[in-house]
Amino acid sequence: MIRHARWRSGLDGIVDGLQYSNWSRKIFEDLRAGGVVAVHATAIYWENTRESLSRIAQWNQRFEQFPDLIRKVRTPADLGQAGADGRIAFMLGAQNCSPIEDDIGLVEVFRDLGLLFMQLTYNNQTALAAGCYESDDAGVTRFGRQVISEMNRCGMIIDMSHSAERSTLEAISLSRRPIVISHANPASVHPSIRNKSDKVLQALSASGGFLGLSTYPFHLKGGPECTLLGFAELAAQAVDVMGIDQVGIGSDLCLDQPTSILTWMRNGRWAKEMDFGEGSADNAAWPPPLTWLKSGRDFPNIRQGLLDFGFSPADAQKIMGANWMRFLEAGLKPE
Amino acid sequence: MIRHARWRSGLDGIVDGLQYSNWSRKIFEDLRAGGVVAVHATAIYWENTRESLSRIAQWNQRFEQFPDLIRKVRTPADLGQAGADGRIAFMLGAQNCSPIEDDIGLVEVFRDLGLLFMQLTYNNQTALAAGCYESDDAGVTRFGRQVISEMNRCGMIIDMSHSAERSTLEAISLSRRPIVISHANPASVHPSIRNKSDKVLQALSASGGFLGLSTYPFHLKGGPECTLLGFAELAAQAVDVMGIDQVGIGSDLCLDQPTSILTWMRNGRWAKEMDFGEGSADNAAWPPPLTWLKSGRDFPNIRQGLLDFGFSPADAQKIMGANWMRFLEAGLKPE
Repeated sequence: MIRHARWRSGLDGIVDGLQYSNWSRKIFEDLRAGGVVAVHATAIYWENTRESLSRIAQWNQRFEQFPDLIRKVRTPADLGQAGADGRIAFMLGAQNCSPIEDDIGLVEVFRDLGLLFMQLTYNNQTALAAGCYESDDAGVTRFGRQVISEMNRCGMIIDMSHSAERSTLEAISLSRRPIVISHANPASVHPSIRNKSDKVLQALSASGGFLGLSTYPFHLKGGPECTLLGFAELAAQAVDVMGIDQVGIGSDLCLDQPTSILTWMRNGRWAKEMDFGEGSADNAAWPPPLTWLKSGRDFPNIRQGLLDFGFSPADAQKIMGANWMRFLEAGLKPE
Repeated sequence: MIRHARWRSGLDGIVDGLQYSNWSRKIFEDLRAGGVVAVHATAIYWENTRESLSRIAQWNQRFEQFPDLIRKVRTPADLGQAGADGRIAFMLGAQNCSPIEDDIGLVEVFRDLGLLFMQLTYNNQTALAAGCYESDDAGVTRFGRQVISEMNRCGMIIDMSHSAERSTLEAISLSRRPIVISHANPASVHPSIRNKSDKVLQALSASGGFLGLSTYPFHLKGGPECTLLGFAELAAQAVDVMGIDQVGIGSDLCLDQPTSILTWMRNGRWAKEMDFGEGSADNAAWPPPLTWLKSGRDFPNIRQGLLDFGFSPADAQKIMGANWMRFLEAGLKPE
């Protein structure tokens, strides 16, 4: 087995709670060089059941193609191996409930296939709940309640990153198990529609839930100009609300993705009139990258920023990976 | 844990290599009372990918509903538990390649979901090979070769029960691993289209493959009048061709199924002009059951028939279950 000088174990490695990169050997190698041991990777945005299977199959082919670099997580035990053999543990997720269509039985089916996270909504209203861009939010639906219970049973983690406020509060309250907001920031720091109110974050924290801090420029004060210290300050403010044990990173990195993918993420097949999401007609492309997070190799910069801001090494590591590890090892167990 | 006086371990329990019953508590209890510890159950005939997922989900619900009676097999280790806790080990299979549609990646996807067997064809030509009712058989196709290799890799067992002769011989030859004919009989005993020539059975045997003996009346000399000794004689003739270690039972029981299911099995959605399969327009319904195999409770009759015919107790047990167990524990391992 190849030894990697910079390789970290699960305990001191970095965990990224959300990415949707254009996966390649280079991206995997960059992440490994950056000490990343586990990543929650979005496999699905708008894909229906049949299409979702092909996304899963595409990931299976990646696991077959890059056996030296990545491994698929199905169980907490798989995650416990993260960092043990130089392979990054990949956890697949859906940012929408489209894979299950109208079929409660497909929660278990997709959990069996290694889909470990599912958002109940992606920006728009779904059969389960309201998305964060809807003008009205009627909360979790009849089907939504059943899906929450079934996700709890199967050990599929509920993610409300792109959901509206009332729906998120209801999901926190209805779920028997802690849920996550895998990639968003406190709205008190930067009031974008995707960021979360202190009310949501307090309810999330009180229920044992988890927040992954986003590095997507639209979610940051100053946008692409946000400094490392600015990000560390944001982390400190999140910790003030959530506590030091329930915050991690959810970078929302979309490395090497063409604009066509951004358009797909924003419009799926539902929009005839172009939707620009967090951008606008005159700002329709990807935002410029942060200077301190241009590839997976740069993750140690975040740790350094946290230390420079004044976090202790132990607290910085909680945010960089240890918190996610502890949360996930519990959250991925079936009931 | 409830102890069952008549319960057998995997070594002396009965394994049934194919059933498609109308599953209920009564049927499971009858099988258990009959000493059956493992069953290959057909989940899919003509269902496409999406529909196949709902069939899998339906089975998952059965496993949730009857946790005292049945357990799902995914791995050889699961099968090794057969009989250990009073639960029958169920192995799901497809009698057709319809679940994978045109997507090689769906072999692994369905194997992950616990689909352990797949026939390359069900009576008709498919994208993979020719079915036994086609007038011409051009053998295994381009896609078929890739699927055989992928099934080998994933530990999904190739079943050619309903395939045509040339296709079957080619599948035996192309496959890196032994294949099965899970439910059919020697055509030398009863020359029905579904039964297999000695040439096929010899090639199957030489490659380490496996034959499950069918009790479907259309596959038996004398049909529903076939006696227990007649069936034991058929078993002896199969053993003469295949050897004592590669023959088991594949009952093809379809207990409590309405005629509408028989019509579905025969016609799927492909037939506008009714196809009667092994029946005919004036004999379109299920054949009457054998007097000695009316439910799962009657499996011990088969063992008794083999003993009465002159098989040793050890050889009778090989046919009743030990052979299947040994074959499956190897065949279900991924490469």
